[in-house]
Amino acid sequence: MEVNNIIDHLTQHGVKPSPQRLNIYKYLIEEKNHPTVDTIFKDLIGAMPTLSKTTVYNTLKLFIDKGVAKVINIENNETRYDADTSIHGHFKCEKCLKVFDINIDMSEIKTLDISGFLIKETHFYLKGICKKCRSD
Amino acid sequence: MEVNNIIDHLTQHGVKPSPQRLNIYKYLIEEKNHPTVDTIFKDLIGAMPTLSKTTVYNTLKLFIDKGVAKVINIENNETRYDADTSIHGHFKCEKCLKVFDINIDMSEIKTLDISGFLIKETHFYLKGICKKCRSD
Repeated sequence: MEVNNIIDHLTQHGVKPSPQRLNIYKYLIEEKNHPTVDTIFKDLIGAMPTLSKTTVYNTLKLFIDKGVAKVINIENNETRYDADTSIHGHFKCEKCLKVFDINIDMSEIKTLDISGFLIKETHFYLKGICKKCRSD
Repeated sequence: MEVNNIIDHLTQHGVKPSPQRLNIYKYLIEEKNHPTVDTIFKDLIGAMPTLSKTTVYNTLKLFIDKGVAKVINIENNETRYDADTSIHGHFKCEKCLKVFDINIDMSEIKTLDISGFLIKETHFYLKGICKKCRSD
């Protein structure tokens, strides 16, 4: 996504695109690494010396409130973030610890026993060993 | 599941069925409430005055290691447990906070982009509002 498109995307969702917010959102989109607050902070502090972990946390919280990012819970001791808010799944490799995107067709999932339920969030993830780590 | 069947099930999986373990496993099966350590402790301390949270935690850890229970991570600040180790999904109602089981047919999910990956765990959960809370 071009910077101008990011500005439009954030503005359309009610997020005022300050330089810090732009940099953090650009990072989420370009790295696609489903980072934690710590990862974002470590990777951006060099280019943004005034950044704090609190700012990263508050920025991500704003992104989620405004619907331009979402939380991924795979382990109960780490919260990861994703700028891709479409319904998709994740695969976490237990060796290299990378989180991969998985395309899933949720319409194929039969969930008859929850008719009448209002679904607001859909989460799907797998754990195992990725192809590269299996061949290493 | 009858008590004798629980004893057989635990024994077959290498879990020595002490009275405490039996009671905790029976609770998991009968309540089907996907409890946290705290919930189990609160509900069983009356009948088992010598129970401690550490014992509950260690017993659940043993159940998971031996494959007779599994962990459910829906929120990143609470770990829940399930004696049903088959592949199925969960729905958490944000109003009553109950966790419901969902039958899902995982064979229908198309995950073409992870061919060659070794899948060890499958997790699927939804969040929203249950039928009862919607009508209240």
